[in-house]
Amino acid sequence: MTYLDFDKTAVYGKLAALAENYSFNYAKNLDAERVRKCLVPQGGGLNYSWAAKSLDDRVIALLRELAAEQELIGKYKALLDGAIINTGENRRVLHQLLRGQLGKAVIDGGKDLGLFYREQTDRVAAFAGAVRAGTLRGATGKRFSAAVQIGIGGSDLGPRALYLALENWARAEGRAQLRAAFISNVDPDDASAVLARLPLEETLFVLVSKSGTTQETLANELFVKEKLRAAGLDPAKHVVAVTSETSPLAHNPAYLDSFYIDDFIGGRYSASSAVGGVILSLAFGPETFREFLAGAHEADALALNPELLENAALLDALIGVWERNFLRYPYTAILPYSQALSRFPAHLQQLDMESNGKRVNRDGAPLGYVTGPVVFGEPGTNGQHSFYQLLHQGTDIVPLQFLGFTESQAGDDVQVEGSSSQTKLLANLAAQIAAFARGQRAEGPNLNRDFPGGRPSSLIYGRRLGPAALGALLAHFENKVMFQGFVWNVNSFDQEGVQLGKILTKRVLQGVSGDAALDAYAALLGI
Amino acid sequence: MTYLDFDKTAVYGKLAALAENYSFNYAKNLDAERVRKCLVPQGGGLNYSWAAKSLDDRVIALLRELAAEQELIGKYKALLDGAIINTGENRRVLHQLLRGQLGKAVIDGGKDLGLFYREQTDRVAAFAGAVRAGTLRGATGKRFSAAVQIGIGGSDLGPRALYLALENWARAEGRAQLRAAFISNVDPDDASAVLARLPLEETLFVLVSKSGTTQETLANELFVKEKLRAAGLDPAKHVVAVTSETSPLAHNPAYLDSFYIDDFIGGRYSASSAVGGVILSLAFGPETFREFLAGAHEADALALNPELLENAALLDALIGVWERNFLRYPYTAILPYSQALSRFPAHLQQLDMESNGKRVNRDGAPLGYVTGPVVFGEPGTNGQHSFYQLLHQGTDIVPLQFLGFTESQAGDDVQVEGSSSQTKLLANLAAQIAAFARGQRAEGPNLNRDFPGGRPSSLIYGRRLGPAALGALLAHFENKVMFQGFVWNVNSFDQEGVQLGKILTKRVLQGVSGDAALDAYAALLGI
Repeated sequence: MTYLDFDKTAVYGKLAALAENYSFNYAKNLDAERVRKCLVPQGGGLNYSWAAKSLDDRVIALLRELAAEQELIGKYKALLDGAIINTGENRRVLHQLLRGQLGKAVIDGGKDLGLFYREQTDRVAAFAGAVRAGTLRGATGKRFSAAVQIGIGGSDLGPRALYLALENWARAEGRAQLRAAFISNVDPDDASAVLARLPLEETLFVLVSKSGTTQETLANELFVKEKLRAAGLDPAKHVVAVTSETSPLAHNPAYLDSFYIDDFIGGRYSASSAVGGVILSLAFGPETFREFLAGAHEADALALNPELLENAALLDALIGVWERNFLRYPYTAILPYSQALSRFPAHLQQLDMESNGKRVNRDGAPLGYVTGPVVFGEPGTNGQHSFYQLLHQGTDIVPLQFLGFTESQAGDDVQVEGSSSQTKLLANLAAQIAAFARGQRAEGPNLNRDFPGGRPSSLIYGRRLGPAALGALLAHFENKVMFQGFVWNVNSFDQEGVQLGKILTKRVLQGVSGDAALDAYAALLGI
Repeated sequence: MTYLDFDKTAVYGKLAALAENYSFNYAKNLDAERVRKCLVPQGGGLNYSWAAKSLDDRVIALLRELAAEQELIGKYKALLDGAIINTGENRRVLHQLLRGQLGKAVIDGGKDLGLFYREQTDRVAAFAGAVRAGTLRGATGKRFSAAVQIGIGGSDLGPRALYLALENWARAEGRAQLRAAFISNVDPDDASAVLARLPLEETLFVLVSKSGTTQETLANELFVKEKLRAAGLDPAKHVVAVTSETSPLAHNPAYLDSFYIDDFIGGRYSASSAVGGVILSLAFGPETFREFLAGAHEADALALNPELLENAALLDALIGVWERNFLRYPYTAILPYSQALSRFPAHLQQLDMESNGKRVNRDGAPLGYVTGPVVFGEPGTNGQHSFYQLLHQGTDIVPLQFLGFTESQAGDDVQVEGSSSQTKLLANLAAQIAAFARGQRAEGPNLNRDFPGGRPSSLIYGRRLGPAALGALLAHFENKVMFQGFVWNVNSFDQEGVQLGKILTKRVLQGVSGDAALDAYAALLGI
């Protein structure tokens, strides 16, 4: 395997040359045939539609060349087989293995890691089953009715987004049992507000920290334990830990139980592990979590397809590279036409920006090209009444990624003026894709109703958002980000950018800063 | 008053020339003295700190010149006096007048609009007082315990962000009474999920649509009314309307009561009107809403100061222009170190991107320079464990806007390792500002721990987030966006960019599209 900076490849110059005077009126060609042709199955019943992307045959040919030259499928296979892809930390990258085996068995220190992950998933399932059945209860013998995750970053955003994504579905399917809440911020008002809404006696806390040393999470743990003790409840009967086996939280009688991950599961990639598994299994049942993993595994398998136009994650990745490095768009918007996905853009923001917001290559050498874009988004139709103004008529182009489902989750709907709300939702989605692509010219002199169009978008859609579709959706983006990292030759699996802040925070708290800027701001803030 | 495109001003070329080889090591100068000097009072007990912005005396001199040449204060005064600032729609812009009189009396059609707005605020206060006192009750005679806002865009994001911002504070102050929820999306799962959590019998709905014709809001109104009727509850006893006097919702016996705004209050600027006032007054009491208005009014008054370095909104606006048009940063991040402000960035995203995401000037002529940036953000410290990686070590620079408060809202805290969570929160905030400014050079060859620094930030801070501070914070950003609109010579108060989507949606729903792209996507989505 050769790891090469992107601008050292032969195809880089060809793409740059093509982009120079590139023009392709995809909007003009956007008809039933193009829409039918530009469709790729993505797992979990989802499809990826790229008909409204600015991609002609010349671009596709070069992207295919890029995939081959940067050995993208080969690198993915190496990752699956347990190669040290996380170079800076000298670690394997095994979040796909959580969902199922696609490569060779990965043996580390004599341990079969695939087996280890499956054991943990089984332990989580048994635990959640006992809580849901009422055989495992709180300190006063009451059944648990609520579960609160205490974690931050990857231990929060992914599980929270997934919980919200399935809450309505599980209610409709009769699978919803414990309701979940989340405490993440070190701001004490976060924990205070969450606890004010819950019956402590019936609440099970899921403490999540891989290292067992995360400052925010330990502070919130103590916050919660003080409240439990004040209510006369034994914390050891109300808190489980999700951590690594080497952490101080592991095998610790202070917790009701502990579930394990290891260093090969990065925080932002950990939703498929016990980090997401415990809270989702408590809330919606272990079977729901297994269906989620199966959907993700299906998408992981499809991402092995070497044919660009049959591999949704690969194609999405390379379109993103084309837009970022050659069309020079510095951002991308995630627009789910599904209220259930209200926090999914926040998770993808972390996934993408923390993985590929890098300025050095996997060996630490500076790069001569741009890498990860800024990612943001909110659900449609809400966004239409908000920031879409800039997307339609701003001075810059923002590439768009739409998500949508033909059926609602709850099946609870109303007819107004001859159509259901679900149909209105989808009509808005179709209308926006067309409007962004084509625009509409106004006649002067007042051009405030002029829509330039030429704003490229893709669409991921399925029938109904349930666990398998959600798993495939998550895996799609994880794999997209992975492929982009391979193109850019960055390490998508470390996050050294968070370290400096941690060091400086510690200095402030220890009162030993001696750093003029830091001292000045600490004084300003009264600490 | 002269309305001139930005690139037609004399100062534009000077700023461009200065930016060409601009370099100012503000990080090196970032000490107690600079931090003390670069501080502007902002109303509501808040201060605006710009010490960590890349602004030397040459830039400041030119920004002062810009303020004078584009007559920014004069245009603000004209707006306050009722000038037709919203040119495209031929309307006045009077959201500041909601908060108090700063200019001449604005008489329209013989009506004193300041008086009209005050009357409505008083009516809202009386109504909310009656509900909170239990003299006004639901159809079965039960007291109202919950209020649900039905609205979208400006009728949702602002009120929702403000509600979340004060929920914890009101609980601590003993002012919290009705809990609030929000239904916005036309996705039927939104309304379904919200209603599943509430006791309908004790729920008051606040239906908000200025025109009375918003598709999403009317669909959700019917959704809710069907549920009320199915529960045997008379909708006329459970729904109030906030609308304009010319809308079909006005003076309509189908509603328990109606409160009015007019065409001079734009959706995204309407949080200070009954649009925000009803739900906030129900939840936290009319007195809380009055304090909020007073804080906003104080900030509005401070924004009249012609001295650049004493006018926080003006300075913030012009720094943004310097960063956008001359340093060429295409985005800006809002980073509140306050969990209560979790949805405030989403509101600012709408406020800014819908107002200034424009490519034509106020007369509809195309512009030759960039306007509003992409705005995004999430609360710290959460973001530190998420997208901050890209902010620290990505290939592009994202200007940052930090918000923070020295005290928590609830005063409920815990000591861990010698410091409270609130102190940790602030230590993190100080550390991030210093880290972004200064970075930290690593020694090669592996530079993955290299932090380039030079990432400019500002900070708005105060003692504790309560209604007056929140009002000042909101008004600060409204006025910032207004001043930027004046610089760019755009109409910040219309949103024609949403119209094309509405037209195309209607065509799909009526089945009369005849538009290949639209038909293809409608077919793909099964409608």
